[in-house]
Amino acid sequence: MRYAVLGTGIVGRTLAGKLVSLGHDVLIGTRDPGATLAVRGPNEYGIPAYADWQAGHPEVRLAAFADAAEGADVLVNATGGRVSLQALASVDRAHVDGKVLIDVANPLDFSRGFPPGLDPVDSDSLGEQLQRAHPALRVVKTLNTMQCAVMVDPGRVAGEHHVFLSGDDGDAKKEVRELLHSFGWPEASVLDLGGIETARGTEMLLPIWLRLMGSLGHTDFNFHIQGAGGGRVTP
Amino acid sequence: MRYAVLGTGIVGRTLAGKLVSLGHDVLIGTRDPGATLAVRGPNEYGIPAYADWQAGHPEVRLAAFADAAEGADVLVNATGGRVSLQALASVDRAHVDGKVLIDVANPLDFSRGFPPGLDPVDSDSLGEQLQRAHPALRVVKTLNTMQCAVMVDPGRVAGEHHVFLSGDDGDAKKEVRELLHSFGWPEASVLDLGGIETARGTEMLLPIWLRLMGSLGHTDFNFHIQGAGGGRVTP
Repeated sequence: MRYAVLGTGIVGRTLAGKLVSLGHDVLIGTRDPGATLAVRGPNEYGIPAYADWQAGHPEVRLAAFADAAEGADVLVNATGGRVSLQALASVDRAHVDGKVLIDVANPLDFSRGFPPGLDPVDSDSLGEQLQRAHPALRVVKTLNTMQCAVMVDPGRVAGEHHVFLSGDDGDAKKEVRELLHSFGWPEASVLDLGGIETARGTEMLLPIWLRLMGSLGHTDFNFHIQGAGGGRVTP
Repeated sequence: MRYAVLGTGIVGRTLAGKLVSLGHDVLIGTRDPGATLAVRGPNEYGIPAYADWQAGHPEVRLAAFADAAEGADVLVNATGGRVSLQALASVDRAHVDGKVLIDVANPLDFSRGFPPGLDPVDSDSLGEQLQRAHPALRVVKTLNTMQCAVMVDPGRVAGEHHVFLSGDDGDAKKEVRELLHSFGWPEASVLDLGGIETARGTEMLLPIWLRLMGSLGHTDFNFHIQGAGGGRVTP
């Protein structure tokens, strides 16, 4: 399968690296490849420059959003949540329609400092915004409730814990469920919440996630819904 | 100890019943006791009339908010979150200041139907609003992330699961922790998130809680933070 991972941050890189290790063909999409490659040294959060990561992952190709999406079977939205709509808008509709978009982003708003708030929140969600903007795209919100290292290696957190699915297209959710299995998520850990509207619930886990990160002092934790009974609730 | 449980709904009744069973002296506070007792028959959600519940719990006394709070050692806010500030405003400041308020309410906004939204949300919380309105009250947000039957009987949900604490007063949190133990919550299940600002995180669990209730078809579930490592993170 060919994946276009939109977003060059730590989340996009982690997912791209995992997808490549599973034998998939992966392009990473960015607004301006030249600008992305020109960045030198780690950023303010200590994340290494993209070019340094790229040097260690020659199988992954960098391209503009539109070029990355063009030949892709599946799109992954790993851009910052506040620019996701803009990123996807730069792709020709013909290369979006009918495809599955795995949306792992959260609309974090850092304008008032740390911890960030959410925008939109409660009465809307990024997942729904993406679906509304692209009605023929099959948006599946998932993996957005944990640190990216846990997304691709659930065993980092001992014991049972959940990954949520929200989306209006049952076949798309089935495809994403298979991908999650290939990442190491067992069947019982995948909790289907229902339609894309339920993305409001998972995006709104971010505020407590950020505060748990603060009080626990690490990011190797995840939500487990005790009493969910195996996870296969909404097939 | 004498508790004033503010709110006559299912949450207030469940907590009052548990507190009485543990040997505490309990008054339930309401806006207008006469009006509360005059209601006949179950409400639209099938909750029996207060008078019917009261008949089975003669040890619990009903009083106006102000009268219930006057002689109480500890206040419990189990009012609807949208009217909590108003309920507490009707109590003489002398009967509020210095006391612990256990805030189990969520600011659910049903004005746009079901599932309800939150107001305030993200940039503020009901817990913070209560603390700001009453600076000498020692607000502890807890138990607001689960159905009330689970609050007083955590064994309804098999396996480990968490109850969160948010509050600025360490001694108040210690007192509430002891109360939670008496409800059946083991030490390792009580997760202290930090100051009252962290109530934003727990109140924002409600949207996914409501959607989980929908997809699971029951309310005997709860959040467990896998990887929290015993819960004693912020003593």
